[in-house]
Formats: sequence, structure tokens, C-alpha cells
Amino acid sequence: MFIAVVGGGQCSRDEAKLAEAVGTQLAKRGVTLICGGLGGVMAAACKGARAANGRTVGILPGNSREEANPYVDIPVVTGMGEARNVIVVNSAQAVIAIGGQYGTLSEIACALRNKIPVIGLNTWSLSKNGRLVKSIISANTPREAVEKALAAAEGKTKAGEKE
Amino acid sequence: MFIAVVGGGQCSRDEAKLAEAVGTQLAKRGVTLICGGLGGVMAAACKGARAANGRTVGILPGNSREEANPYVDIPVVTGMGEARNVIVVNSAQAVIAIGGQYGTLSEIACALRNKIPVIGLNTWSLSKNGRLVKSIISANTPREAVEKALAAAEGKTKAGEKE
Amino acid sequence: MFIAVVGGGQCSRDEAKLAEAVGTQLAKRGVTLICGGLGGVMAAACKGARAANGRTVGILPGNSREEANPYVDIPVVTGMGEARNVIVVNSAQAVIAIGGQYGTLSEIACALRNKIPVIGLNTWSLSKNGRLVKSIISANTPREAVEKALAAAEGKTKAGEKE
Amino acid sequence: MFIAVVGGGQCSRDEAKLAEAVGTQLAKRGVTLICGGLGGVMAAACKGARAANGRTVGILPGNSREEANPYVDIPVVTGMGEARNVIVVNSAQAVIAIGGQYGTLSEIACALRNKIPVIGLNTWSLSKNGRLVKSIISANTPREAVEKALAAAEGKTKAGEKE
Repeated sequence: MFIAVVGGGQCSRDEAKLAEAVGTQLAKRGVTLICGGLGGVMAAACKGARAANGRTVGILPGNSREEANPYVDIPVVTGMGEARNVIVVNSAQAVIAIGGQYGTLSEIACALRNKIPVIGLNTWSLSKNGRLVKSIISANTPREAVEKALAAAEGKTKAGEKE
Repeated sequence: MFIAVVGGGQCSRDEAKLAEAVGTQLAKRGVTLICGGLGGVMAAACKGARAANGRTVGILPGNSREEANPYVDIPVVTGMGEARNVIVVNSAQAVIAIGGQYGTLSEIACALRNKIPVIGLNTWSLSKNGRLVKSIISANTPREAVEKALAAAEGKTKAGEKE
Repeated sequence: MFIAVVGGGQCSRDEAKLAEAVGTQLAKRGVTLICGGLGGVMAAACKGARAANGRTVGILPGNSREEANPYVDIPVVTGMGEARNVIVVNSAQAVIAIGGQYGTLSEIACALRNKIPVIGLNTWSLSKNGRLVKSIISANTPREAVEKALAAAEGKTKAGEKE
Repeated sequence: MFIAVVGGGQCSRDEAKLAEAVGTQLAKRGVTLICGGLGGVMAAACKGARAANGRTVGILPGNSREEANPYVDIPVVTGMGEARNVIVVNSAQAVIAIGGQYGTLSEIACALRNKIPVIGLNTWSLSKNGRLVKSIISANTPREAVEKALAAAEGKTKAGEKE
């Protein structure tokens, strides 16, 4: 199972705590963590995953593996700038969004467009023509976020199998 | 001046009318229209621009220029799928979003991330932790959208010149 | 008709002369010139095209339209680094390669892979297991290169129409 | 250490044998194998690596992890078509090219452009203006290819450390 954690390259201490706990929970379930490979939420999630012996993939925007945070196991060097956001979400079976700025919003949008489930922890909410669009699955704790992500990813896989 | 029009590849009749009028207004101001080159809002905007002798660029997701709508002057064949959305907005000095689904939301997010002004006509609105984020400039008519886009693009250029 | 001119971002005076003449010939035939938008062969070709009132498209690797050479009409801002080479060749109906280093070689290879004809002026030649692979159409003058490119592009289009 | 194996998506039985042996040798040295994730040389190399308990990363061109060959451990879903070739080579510290068509040639060219060492087994050779360009390091056996790739990757790393 592959789950992406997306969020700001800079983040608050609270967001980092959430991300680290999410990383640890994912690793305990045997999930490979996909992320953008840089700092902030990405580094915190990778740190948490590695602390529980999890595997971490960092899809980097620049041209050097050196830009990866120290908890990235497998750096993928895209050289494609923000277009790498598309790869982060497409490589995941579910996405957990933590806080985040516009880069995170673009990842949420890409995931929803491709019918990849998105679980949100203190992140964006969306409305259109004044009505709330409830496409982001809300979670209140890291554990809940991971459980919902696993359930959604499995549901999607099973739905796919039926087709 | 280069301005992008983004919106669904399929759209309502009302959205198509808005897009066509936006395309015409842009062409009358001598602006080159950038878009994703396919149908719906993109085709309507290109149609409006060409009717006023404007120039249209279509940044296509697939591998063939044949997929461009018939009003695209200059097809750019990326073969990069949705990652081409990043190119559409990065190539523009302002973005006008009309209606739209998640692909449009990802384009709005990319533009805002890169400090490219976004003008919205009946499109998404964003909030974070329960508070509305007023980053999309709202417009009520095609003419107003184009005027606000031109003003924002010029303001950005002047701000850039000062730096 | 859309034809790409590829070659080094830095080039010899002789290569620049060839590129400028190719640009002028393309413009006189009403062809839109596609290139990577930077200096060297790209700038020389654009300069030649603009001198004959031709249209020039620059598919830029970085994040700013400011990096385009001054003869680019329509800058496309990809932010994707070298991956933009794929877009340059895919957007063309034939490719003219002038001199060039490894970046040019990658563009030649991409074009040949996608069955886009390549005309070479003082550029790479290829062999495999000791045998020359004659896939690059050789030309000795700018005029010959443009004529061969037009003929090849039209042949390809006609072949495509038959299918 | 990360080393890429590139070659045709379809290949001869001899090329498949070479690729499988290269994959096994890489795994025995503890190297993570990077490839394009599809069939032919890519599948054979992954098969060899997995047989020796190695780790394999497949950088896929399409939109689905299902297109990965069964020996890919970590599928990266780019959705970017051939532009993914740039990611394959940029993510590697050395590249081993086996046989191959124009897609492989574009990967060789990208690697050389970015000063990533390329080791060739029965692959392309390059000349410019009639002179052979000896930039591809030739190898005669899978073991020799892997040894040369490791030496070149380490040399590059050490050279980088000195800077």
C-alpha cells in the first residue's frame, strides 16, 4: 500500500507533530509513505515513518538528491518543479493532507480529479457557488486519518476490482 | 500580454457563453489567450478570441495536435497529461477561471502559489480552518473579468519592475 | 506548419549563421518556428525568423518568461527543466538540428522515437553495434534543410491522412 | 546507491538475459535498481534484482500502477509519457544501457548531459562531424557493466565531495 502525505514545506510545530504521528502510524501498518521529499510536513512525516522502520519515497522538485530531507529512503529526482506534485498524488492510493498552502491545495485538487481519496487534517475546505463541496474526508487525529486513508484506499481498490 | 482562461473540458451553455465573451474581450485588448486547448470552456474562449482576430495558444495534454479544438492557433503538444496544467498557468500573467471542476481548482491553486492573479467567474471559493481565503478576485461579467485580469497583470508587472 | 530548430544554448559563430538563415527560410515559407527559447542556436534561429516577420514560439525550461531570448514571440513557461525538450519536438512536424551537444541529441532521439522527421546540419550521427543508423536526414545548407524539413513534414502528414 | 537500467520495452532474448544478470549483480551489491517500470529490458532487470532480494523502482509513463511489470517494488506513477525518461536517469548515480531503440538513446543523452556516467552493453555509439564521441563507457559482460557503473558512480560522488 502506498499513501501520500502532503503539506507545507514550512509548517507550524503542531502540524509537524501531526505529520510525524501520521508517518509513524503508516509505517506500523506496513504502508510505504510517498511525499514531496522536502522539509516541513514532508520531513516530519518521513521522520515518523523511519522511527517505526517504515519506507519513505521523496518525489523531489529539483535536480539533486541532496535536497531530500534526511528521512527519505528513496529519492526520485524529477527536475520538474511543481509538476512533481502530480506525481506525488498519482503514485498514492490515498492522500493525507495536513495544513498546507496553495501547493497542498493543488495536490488535493489533482487527487480528487483522479478519484484518489483525500483525508484532511486542519486543511483546506472547498465550496462552489456558495455551497460546501464535501470531497475531502475530515479527520481529527493522526490515527483517524490513517485509518480513514486505509479504508478509502482499500474501498477504491475493491471497487476497481469489481469493474 | 498573455492571459489564461481555465475551466472544464465539458461545461454548461451559460459557462460557454461567459467563456466566449471573455475570449472576445481579450482579443479586442490585443491579449494572447492561453488555455489547455481542448473543449468546453477552452474551446468557447478560443472561439470568441478568433472571432475578434485574437491569437490563441493551446497547451495540450496528449500526444497529438489533432486533439486541439478548431480555434487553437498554436498547439503545444506536451504529452504530459495533467501536468500540462502547470504550464498553462505559468505561461500567463493572469488567469481567468470559469466554473470548472477539480482540474480547474488545481490550476487556480498553481497560479496562486506562483503569485499569478486569479479572477473567478462562478468558480471555486476557498476556506481554511473555517475562514474564507479571499485570494480569488471575483468578477460578475466577462468584461469585468478581463478588466480585472489586465489590471492585476499590469500591477504585477509593475510591482516586479520595482524589485 | 510548425517546425522546431534545436541546437546548443551556446554555439559557434558558424552555427549561429546557419541557424539564423534557417529561421529566415522558415519564416519566408510561412512556418511557425518552435524552439527552446534560450540563446545560441535558439536565439539565432528566432532572430532570423523575426527579421522575415515569422512567428516564434519558445518552450522555456525555467519559471520566468524573462529568460526567453528577445526574438521569442510566444514564450511558454514550463518550469520543467530539460523535460521541456520533449515538448519542443512533440510540438513540431519536423525538427532541424544544428550542431549541438547532449541536450540536442536527446531532442533528436525523442523526435525519431515519435516518428517526427529530423534534418541535421553538422550534427550528431548514430551507430549501433558498429553499423551507421541513417535516421537523420542530412542537409548541407540552410535552404536545403528547410526544403527537406517541409517535404518530410508534408510526407508525414499525407501518410497520416491515408491511415 | 541508485543505478538505472535502460533499454527497450521489447527486447531480444539475449538482451533479456543480459538485463536479468545486471539486475542480479546490482542487487547483490545492495544497489537499488531504477527503471522505466515496463517490459523488455526493464522487466528482465527487475526480475533479476528481485531474485536476489534487491529493491526495484519503476518510474511509469502512464496513469496506472497496474502497468508496472510484476517485479517492480515501488511504482512511481508519473502520467507524463516519455518525459518520465528524464526522471529515470536523474534519479540514478549511473546508468547501464542495454541494446535499446530511440527511447534508450534519449535516456543516454539526458544522462550524459547531466554528467551521469553511462555504461553500455551492445547499445548505441555516437559520433559528431565524423569523429567518434567516446562518452559511453563500454562493457562486455553484465558483471563488468555493474563494476564499471559502481566505480563511475563512486568516482562521481567523491569528485562531488571534493568540490
